[in-house]
Amino acid sequence: MTKNVLILPGDGIGPEIVEQAVRVLDQVNASFDLNIEHESALVGGSAYDETGSPLPEVTLDKAKAANAILLGAVGGPKWDGLDMSVRPEKGLLGLRSNLELFANLRPAILYPQLADASSLKHEIVAGLDILIVRELTGGIYFGQPRGIRTLENGERQGYNTYVYSESEIRRIARSAFEAARQRNKRVCSIDKSNVLEVTVLWKEVMEEVAKEYPDVELSHMLVDNAAMQLVRAPKQFDVMVTGNMFGDILSDAAAMLTGSIGMLPSASLNAEGRGMYEPCHGSAPDIAGQGKANPLATILSVAMMLRYSLEAKEAADAIETAVSNVLDQGLRTADIASEGCTTVSTAQMGDAVLAAL
Amino acid sequence: MTKNVLILPGDGIGPEIVEQAVRVLDQVNASFDLNIEHESALVGGSAYDETGSPLPEVTLDKAKAANAILLGAVGGPKWDGLDMSVRPEKGLLGLRSNLELFANLRPAILYPQLADASSLKHEIVAGLDILIVRELTGGIYFGQPRGIRTLENGERQGYNTYVYSESEIRRIARSAFEAARQRNKRVCSIDKSNVLEVTVLWKEVMEEVAKEYPDVELSHMLVDNAAMQLVRAPKQFDVMVTGNMFGDILSDAAAMLTGSIGMLPSASLNAEGRGMYEPCHGSAPDIAGQGKANPLATILSVAMMLRYSLEAKEAADAIETAVSNVLDQGLRTADIASEGCTTVSTAQMGDAVLAAL
Ligand SMILES: CC(C)[C@H](C(=O)O)[C@@H](O)C(=O)O
Ligand SMILES: CC(C)[C@H](C(=O)O)[C@@H](O)C(=O)O
Repeated sequence: MTKNVLILPGDGIGPEIVEQAVRVLDQVNASFDLNIEHESALVGGSAYDETGSPLPEVTLDKAKAANAILLGAVGGPKWDGLDMSVRPEKGLLGLRSNLELFANLRPAILYPQLADASSLKHEIVAGLDILIVRELTGGIYFGQPRGIRTLENGERQGYNTYVYSESEIRRIARSAFEAARQRNKRVCSIDKSNVLEVTVLWKEVMEEVAKEYPDVELSHMLVDNAAMQLVRAPKQFDVMVTGNMFGDILSDAAAMLTGSIGMLPSASLNAEGRGMYEPCHGSAPDIAGQGKANPLATILSVAMMLRYSLEAKEAADAIETAVSNVLDQGLRTADIASEGCTTVSTAQMGDAVLAAL
Repeated sequence: MTKNVLILPGDGIGPEIVEQAVRVLDQVNASFDLNIEHESALVGGSAYDETGSPLPEVTLDKAKAANAILLGAVGGPKWDGLDMSVRPEKGLLGLRSNLELFANLRPAILYPQLADASSLKHEIVAGLDILIVRELTGGIYFGQPRGIRTLENGERQGYNTYVYSESEIRRIARSAFEAARQRNKRVCSIDKSNVLEVTVLWKEVMEEVAKEYPDVELSHMLVDNAAMQLVRAPKQFDVMVTGNMFGDILSDAAAMLTGSIGMLPSASLNAEGRGMYEPCHGSAPDIAGQGKANPLATILSVAMMLRYSLEAKEAADAIETAVSNVLDQGLRTADIASEGCTTVSTAQMGDAVLAAL
């Protein structure tokens, strides 16, 4: 049966990194006989420029029909002045919520070949391998009411609502426990239950769901402490699970611990395991179009996509091995450049992965 | 004129670290002839245990009458099961809001003597000196409505409200710009304006206030990026200003960059410059009563108190110099213990500071 992949290059460096990732996808598609077809569509700022919407109907329809989605990145200063409702980010948020991609898996892995890139001491991060499970379709990102209103005294007031229901918490808890079962069987749930009622409920539901997973250990940590512990001793964590906003902050901090955010893929899954795959990094408008960007996070996102949504574990393994080989060869894009290594362009990095496959 | 200081030892290690800080306060009071009187009161879990309230009326009255407050720390697992309304943290939050201590100043400074304690590479943190200005009486910590309700379908839903008005943003902006004027004249305002309306207003008001401070440079950064940049290159910052929740997370991460959070004081000020002073670290119930805790953050909080609220700059300088001398002598409490240094107890550290004064 044919599998459909929707390619969403997006903005900034999106198109150039996605181009390399698609070459890799095409090659494993041929060599592993995967029967994958793909087409592209617009999203984000580039979609707004062409259609007036960051998430055109046709893109959303194609996304709903696809077996999996590969996204580059969205956003850039060009669109900063736009009204919130049509900003590039709304394209991304619209995809997440319309497809109910509630489970965002963000691994933070230190590649041994890149250990020096970290700003942390070697012993603190050597062997780092944590997985952040972030709730992606609820919380304060989507809570109503929201907006900016004028008070009776004439001053303006901005407001957003941080809200979670039991069922929303339960399903992301299960994602975290399931993921932990495949790893070191430890889940640390992050909350601010000493201040925020919504996270009191979060903590309670985590405890409830934990009973279904007696083989997995659940602990709790306050978000401020979690931010500290990530800096102090990140290897204490296996799986961290948290809401949309805390997850946004902590997963970026965790990714940066490795010093090579240009290497980190992510998956956003719905209840059926269909998903959207994208690099952890952003659209880096400052280097867009210069052939400098690191395509490896996007290429590794293809591997995640093959593994989680397209039942092509062998092809996924092959891509990951190829990436590791390329690093062993000493090839580096500018973001991970290092003495004694060869600095290559986006396309050269793509070539090297294809050659290693 | 006599100045009144209210001492709030609080919970966990609070009493033992505050004891040493009070000895230091007494000594500079005598030697610099400062005319300071102090008395103690209960707050937090220990107040709840004695009175049923984490912030007894008498404590609040004394706090309102005082020229400054010195707080140890509140909270601990002992009170985890309590209803939110009487948890130890409510004592702290009640003091902040009743006294309108809206400006929380949290320096993250790396003491050269303790450079090795950091989990970050030396060159990344050497000379680190940033100031986080956190809004402390608004935002999601205090926003209404809040709670846990049961929906029509029978499931529970937790909710909190993230809210800021122009005037709340304006006054904390001014605190940040004023602080930057005393430093390197750069303010970085942290928001999530690509998703949250409340922070769109935040960003706008920051821009407005910046016009009053043409000598200070204002930049903006998204909170997820800020968490990354703190890990990657923290020295790029001078003053960071942000809301209550983001400030809680980022200031703890920033403090931990130094590896010696036991060294960091903080101030929470109101519009008149009256304030509450406390260490950045928590109540560390696991080591409470063992004489292991580091009293230096609390002792340095006394210095901040003398400088900001009691017009006793010389005494403040003397304390800071004494602390630096003690570190030079190689004395360290357990949290900052290091090879070749002498590990001392809480009281011995207090003795050493007194001797150095
Ligand atoms: C672009 C932005 C809306 C998005 C988010 O905040 O979720 C990004 O930071 C991310 O983490 O994927
Ligand atoms: C104890 C807690 C309520 C408090 C906060 O979240 O503000 C603490 O973490 C702090 O940062 O002072």
